[in-house]
Amino acid sequence: MFKAAIMGFGTVGSGVYEVLDRNADVVAKNARDAIEVKYILDLRDFPDAPHQEKFIKDFSIIENDPEVSIVAETMGGKGAAYEFTKRCLLAGKHVVTSNKELVATHGAELLNIAKESGVNYMFEASVGGGIPIIRPMLQCLTANHMTHVTGILNGTTNYILTRMIDAGLTFETALKEAQEKGYAEANPAADVDGIDACRKICILSDIAYGDHIHPEYVETEGISKITLEDVSYAAQADCVVKLLGRAVLNEDGSIYAFVAPHLVSKKSPLADVDDVFNAILITGDMLGDAMFYGQGAGKLATASAVVADIIDCARHNEHRRMVSWGDGSKNLVRPLDSFASRWYVRLEGADAAKRLIDTFPGCDMLKAAKTGEEAACITAECTTAEMKEKAAALGSVTGCMRLL
Amino acid sequence: MFKAAIMGFGTVGSGVYEVLDRNADVVAKNARDAIEVKYILDLRDFPDAPHQEKFIKDFSIIENDPEVSIVAETMGGKGAAYEFTKRCLLAGKHVVTSNKELVATHGAELLNIAKESGVNYMFEASVGGGIPIIRPMLQCLTANHMTHVTGILNGTTNYILTRMIDAGLTFETALKEAQEKGYAEANPAADVDGIDACRKICILSDIAYGDHIHPEYVETEGISKITLEDVSYAAQADCVVKLLGRAVLNEDGSIYAFVAPHLVSKKSPLADVDDVFNAILITGDMLGDAMFYGQGAGKLATASAVVADIIDCARHNEHRRMVSWGDGSKNLVRPLDSFASRWYVRLEGADAAKRLIDTFPGCDMLKAAKTGEEAACITAECTTAEMKEKAAALGSVTGCMRLL
Repeated sequence: MFKAAIMGFGTVGSGVYEVLDRNADVVAKNARDAIEVKYILDLRDFPDAPHQEKFIKDFSIIENDPEVSIVAETMGGKGAAYEFTKRCLLAGKHVVTSNKELVATHGAELLNIAKESGVNYMFEASVGGGIPIIRPMLQCLTANHMTHVTGILNGTTNYILTRMIDAGLTFETALKEAQEKGYAEANPAADVDGIDACRKICILSDIAYGDHIHPEYVETEGISKITLEDVSYAAQADCVVKLLGRAVLNEDGSIYAFVAPHLVSKKSPLADVDDVFNAILITGDMLGDAMFYGQGAGKLATASAVVADIIDCARHNEHRRMVSWGDGSKNLVRPLDSFASRWYVRLEGADAAKRLIDTFPGCDMLKAAKTGEEAACITAECTTAEMKEKAAALGSVTGCMRLL
Repeated sequence: MFKAAIMGFGTVGSGVYEVLDRNADVVAKNARDAIEVKYILDLRDFPDAPHQEKFIKDFSIIENDPEVSIVAETMGGKGAAYEFTKRCLLAGKHVVTSNKELVATHGAELLNIAKESGVNYMFEASVGGGIPIIRPMLQCLTANHMTHVTGILNGTTNYILTRMIDAGLTFETALKEAQEKGYAEANPAADVDGIDACRKICILSDIAYGDHIHPEYVETEGISKITLEDVSYAAQADCVVKLLGRAVLNEDGSIYAFVAPHLVSKKSPLADVDDVFNAILITGDMLGDAMFYGQGAGKLATASAVVADIIDCARHNEHRRMVSWGDGSKNLVRPLDSFASRWYVRLEGADAAKRLIDTFPGCDMLKAAKTGEEAACITAECTTAEMKEKAAALGSVTGCMRLL
């Protein structure tokens, strides 16, 4: 019998309890022993929850109970979660988590502490919710240089964009609908501004490239400026608008890492990923493309990934997974200035079409929604620095996105 | 420095050598040590291959060399491959393989021998080529009952069906094209008749349900009877024709396991999987759907999965992965008679439409390609036994497939 504790009884934490309870049979079979939740730590009261005797408000009870060997941190944030995680690891307890903010910020340090304490720090649920992605990258793609990591990493923004594309809703209406359905928070900034996707592409890059990629160094652009006109121009170019987190490997081992809305060709498997679904497309130099697709969020889906980590800790209680990455001193992230792609550019003004053609010789013009008032085109390959310069010179650019 | 041997220098075996050679840097980094191929076993001569000194024809050299700790079996078949694998495991060597026929037939026994010898038998490359699927199932989906495993598991047949759908080629022409491109063998039976897909769904079922599923007990139907008319009727029903390997979990723990062409709704993520690509869609009771997509074959893609297994053996040389399943005595496979689905039925004859409506009340009629000569419909849910009985009574059924 393994004894576990859950820290944080929100959506994911209560889901972890539910999965352990409802699927106790398969959990015990796969863990080679039953797993019992001994404590649930939360400062709030849950008078309607069963097993009131398990609820505690004092972290040190978990820290000081040698019987508890595995702790699920589902609190979120990098305040108390950071401190409690460190203290659990130092106390010789495995910690598993869905906390992408903490892993993206302090993952390298926490993995080191885990290593020194001879325990595991696992975070399969931190990217892609229930989709297996962390282990496949760590264990199955190890014979590859991962040349591209490209992900639809945030379900909220993908839902909003899908509703704009399929139902013709404006960004504001689609956001409101997402909030009503519980897909978006009252304050949607972390999703809509790409901050959540940024944390996730950082974690994937940490694993793919072996050194800490700090979220601050990753250029991040959200979707709040996307309009129905952009969606319509994208369709003309046989594309859909998607928010992508991307990491691209350069020959010298440095990477481009960024989050931005893109025009994704309908030929890409990512173009079919709709609603709240997530997908991560990984290109290996030997493997070619592999894609991992599924529910990127959701209580039970995410919780089932946390519980899989708990099972892994229980099953291999004596061994440590050798997972780690550097402290970030390699400074792998190269500024985007030299990163080249084709671009979608939309420009206001009566002479917009002529100005686009003059600025981007050989570009493919799109049919303007309002002829004589604006124009849009797909450019040839052009670096980010060039594009910035040309857009500044043009002045009235109302839309600008890379193509994938 | 780890010393490895490759048994079988065909497509995958030579690919394993190439991946180890070309990506020696990333292999050594992930394995925590360099991996050197000491021997290549093949009865054929390869006068143009480099490192002639590594080629041997006598298996016992590998068996008796204590320096060789990891052996890649890329011979295929279940004759010599079976014997050599057993002897390597008994000699205390890890064995990794892409040999689906051997894993599907003798996997349970070989895993047991590996366990007793304290070594690993790994087979990530046996299903889905380079797509990570075995480890994700073994390690990431462990908190779930896997209610459905549904796969496009054979690239050759998927290529043929894609060409029939997209280019209007007949089965025979598409097969010939696949042979010219090297996607299909001169004798294409193992692919076209669903035998290869059957082996793969057996391996996935072994893992998902924990007991040996023998290929002989898995009803298997290929694609050689599919016509362009079927493809066209499918399009009318907003579906595409795909060859699926399926395992479906019943409440009592028994399963339906089978391979057959299906009409797959265009709303399913499997419908977009074209050409030689493979995909495996897994439904977990907590997770919902997750899909794994990529190149299901190909020299370097498959080889990179074999090499990932080699790396895993090297990295965890001291530990054993606890992978095993029962000997098949649970007899999990239930006959398909009681398995219900909606069906596509196509019938010849002047009165075909009337006879379909009489036989399948409430069915959705499709627009006949040749009015007055045949008719086709989509039925309501109906068990396999009922369908067999009704089709036998109708007599002139020219097409009959389940819907997904």
